[in-house]
Amino acid sequence: MNGPAAPSLATFVYKADPVRGQQWAEVFRKHAPDIEFRIWPDIGAPANVRFLAAWEPPDRIGERFPQLEVLFSSGVGVDQFDLQALPAHLPVVRMVEPGIVQGMVEYVTRAVLDLHRDMPQYRRQQQQGVWRPLPVRPANQRRVGVLGLGSLGQAVLRQLQGLGFACAGWSRSRHTLAGVDCFAGPGGLSQCLAHLDILVCLLPLTDATRGLLNADLFRQLPRGASLVHTGRGPQLATDDLLAALDSGQLAEAVLDVTDPEPLPGAHALWRHPKVQLTPHIASMTQAHSAALATIDNVRRFQAGQPMTGRVDRSRGY
Amino acid sequence: MNGPAAPSLATFVYKADPVRGQQWAEVFRKHAPDIEFRIWPDIGAPANVRFLAAWEPPDRIGERFPQLEVLFSSGVGVDQFDLQALPAHLPVVRMVEPGIVQGMVEYVTRAVLDLHRDMPQYRRQQQQGVWRPLPVRPANQRRVGVLGLGSLGQAVLRQLQGLGFACAGWSRSRHTLAGVDCFAGPGGLSQCLAHLDILVCLLPLTDATRGLLNADLFRQLPRGASLVHTGRGPQLATDDLLAALDSGQLAEAVLDVTDPEPLPGAHALWRHPKVQLTPHIASMTQAHSAALATIDNVRRFQAGQPMTGRVDRSRGY
Repeated sequence: MNGPAAPSLATFVYKADPVRGQQWAEVFRKHAPDIEFRIWPDIGAPANVRFLAAWEPPDRIGERFPQLEVLFSSGVGVDQFDLQALPAHLPVVRMVEPGIVQGMVEYVTRAVLDLHRDMPQYRRQQQQGVWRPLPVRPANQRRVGVLGLGSLGQAVLRQLQGLGFACAGWSRSRHTLAGVDCFAGPGGLSQCLAHLDILVCLLPLTDATRGLLNADLFRQLPRGASLVHTGRGPQLATDDLLAALDSGQLAEAVLDVTDPEPLPGAHALWRHPKVQLTPHIASMTQAHSAALATIDNVRRFQAGQPMTGRVDRSRGY
Repeated sequence: MNGPAAPSLATFVYKADPVRGQQWAEVFRKHAPDIEFRIWPDIGAPANVRFLAAWEPPDRIGERFPQLEVLFSSGVGVDQFDLQALPAHLPVVRMVEPGIVQGMVEYVTRAVLDLHRDMPQYRRQQQQGVWRPLPVRPANQRRVGVLGLGSLGQAVLRQLQGLGFACAGWSRSRHTLAGVDCFAGPGGLSQCLAHLDILVCLLPLTDATRGLLNADLFRQLPRGASLVHTGRGPQLATDDLLAALDSGQLAEAVLDVTDPEPLPGAHALWRHPKVQLTPHIASMTQAHSAALATIDNVRRFQAGQPMTGRVDRSRGY
């Protein structure tokens, strides 16, 4: 009997850290045996490639993989993608998975508590052997504002609210979050900044956010506010930050991202006494939960349902 | 008409920091106008003194205040009281108020996250200008144990559970806390210590806890565990700690209490690269909430109900 040809096996290609790729492979073997999982460059027949997860996608992606149906970023951002160069019809999906959220919540919570409880000053006193208690301000009188109210920003705010902080948030489009003073759009940014003690940047990198953390923005904060920056390096005007710290307009900065990365060892940021600097470790994709979240999105795509983290190309995130 | 004499006004004497005393006075004026609030040494008629809140009580307290009904500590501990020298019938009450709990939760949460996310190592790398990400361990694979399961320990554990840590607890008497592996008594201590990554000491100072944090205890922790000590200075054998840090048995220590306090500027703890030291600031009584909590206890006493924080003199806390 001559029935229709069996559909060729859909191939999922992974092009990022190969060690993590092995962990993804295991998860796919167990939870999605109907999908052929392959690690770059061992991609099999290009015509079978329906899904690609990449940190840096190969060039001429449309020509290489004529049947490609979805491009996944293996990380939380898509600013490493040249969105203009990708086929217009191709859905692009950011990574949204609990490991990333957990890491960011931990990092920002530590940073906010560190600033709230004057730990930078206590570390300086320790270097001098000085025992001097500083006055404690209750958390409900400490105003923390988060720029970026996506899944990361919302999870961070929930944690900070649980610790009793007075919380505010700002994003491009209007959000409503219980117990958070929400501001939106260019006009709302000044209002959000005006009363903050601690500013947390969790924004994606877009043309609108490149260079946003500059002298003009720092001036809109109360004198002596502090910055926690876990967005993207090019959002921060480094020289403006150093000037604001030196003038006292900003008290302290906690930076997880820089421009460039890695930051050269001789850069002034490393040794500024008011800067805490970490090498882009706030939030790292956990291979296991990332693979599970991706399989979930593949199933959604196959069922015609909206995928979690689908990028709006007009916004750039 | 000759009725019974009007009862003399009950006097509440406050003997601690006079600036905070003014804040207590306001709270009493507003919420307990029937009680005559006085700040030491302006105590009025000694025979009217029914309640005394003190950090360091005056000597011969029974002779001075024959009508004294309750002695309140103005702070979380009572180890500064000589319990043997106090009249045997006099109820002694520790301070239990939300400001103390909040401060301790903030301090310990910051310390645990700081250790969990390798921030001490990142600070050392920063000093060298070294950009080197370290592997991240999920919080649910990081085991944190709290010694002391009173109101402070329980609040700290709830916060750490919310962040996803694997939590254990130990106390003198058995407790049952949802989601926490609870151990009790001298026999349970070794079991509790055996698998911890981070040990948090929140114990009160008693004869049983003096010197508890010593080489013998450190040996029962897995190699490379870390210590957060927010109990009392005399619980820690400082030389044993320094030896354990130098040998690698302990990785890091965060200390808020020392012996003596203030710690002399030349002490080795100040400059040990694996020690974070703060000047006993983890948890400070907030005057407003402390006064409200004390009024609540006065009302309980007057109504014949049990007071919150009543000290069991046989235990010493």
